[in-house]
Amino acid sequence: MERIPILKLGNVLLVTIQVDMHDELASALEEDLTQRIVAVGARGVLIDISALEIVDSFMGRMLDNIASVSRILDADTVVVGMRPAVAITLVELGLSLHGVKTALNVDKGLALIATSARHAWRGAGDEDDDGSD
Amino acid sequence: MERIPILKLGNVLLVTIQVDMHDELASALEEDLTQRIVAVGARGVLIDISALEIVDSFMGRMLDNIASVSRILDADTVVVGMRPAVAITLVELGLSLHGVKTALNVDKGLALIATSARHAWRGAGDEDDDGSD
Repeated sequence: MERIPILKLGNVLLVTIQVDMHDELASALEEDLTQRIVAVGARGVLIDISALEIVDSFMGRMLDNIASVSRILDADTVVVGMRPAVAITLVELGLSLHGVKTALNVDKGLALIATSARHAWRGAGDEDDDGSD
Repeated sequence: MERIPILKLGNVLLVTIQVDMHDELASALEEDLTQRIVAVGARGVLIDISALEIVDSFMGRMLDNIASVSRILDADTVVVGMRPAVAITLVELGLSLHGVKTALNVDKGLALIATSARHAWRGAGDEDDDGSD
């Protein structure tokens, strides 16, 4: 059975979606991701969808599911590489991916996860921001 | 036409092979990679093959080709995530991937690229190694 590989970049997990998702593959991915988040103590999950020319409601729900489960396990989910046409389709489908953060590419996604991890560490009430990386 | 996405991680390009490669897809990947190496000034190329259960001589040659072209463009190629059975098959096929570096996973591959970039920068004759990262 085929599985989508999950790559580990420090404390971030990276998944590249290249194939059409069907039920079985999607649930295998969600299960694998959940286990890896716990196993490596991941702070974030990056999902690259730059290979996808269309995203249907099934894929939209899958992204939402992954984000919800990750959040419960204290990991941020960032979807990266979304094509403009895909963004338009998602909104037209009424899927605005409220629980999912997005970034233009992997580098920006990693930066986003690093930033929110730092903020979480400092505590929600702490507004101090020295801007140094 | 489907294309394999190339992700940029700082000055390293990351490719995850998830599907069976055929002629056209392989040459598209080689062409895309070459252009991206030049466009972003990449120091290294990471190719993750953890999803592959078998590697044939076609795939072996493709990895060799990519490594050769990258080297000319001053980028290291590291193949990561190879399964034990795949390593055995490659040797049995007489493909020992001489021009290709390997690492167990993406993290180790990134470290390998960072190390060789640092050594290249210092010059080949410089043996000084402070070990600090």
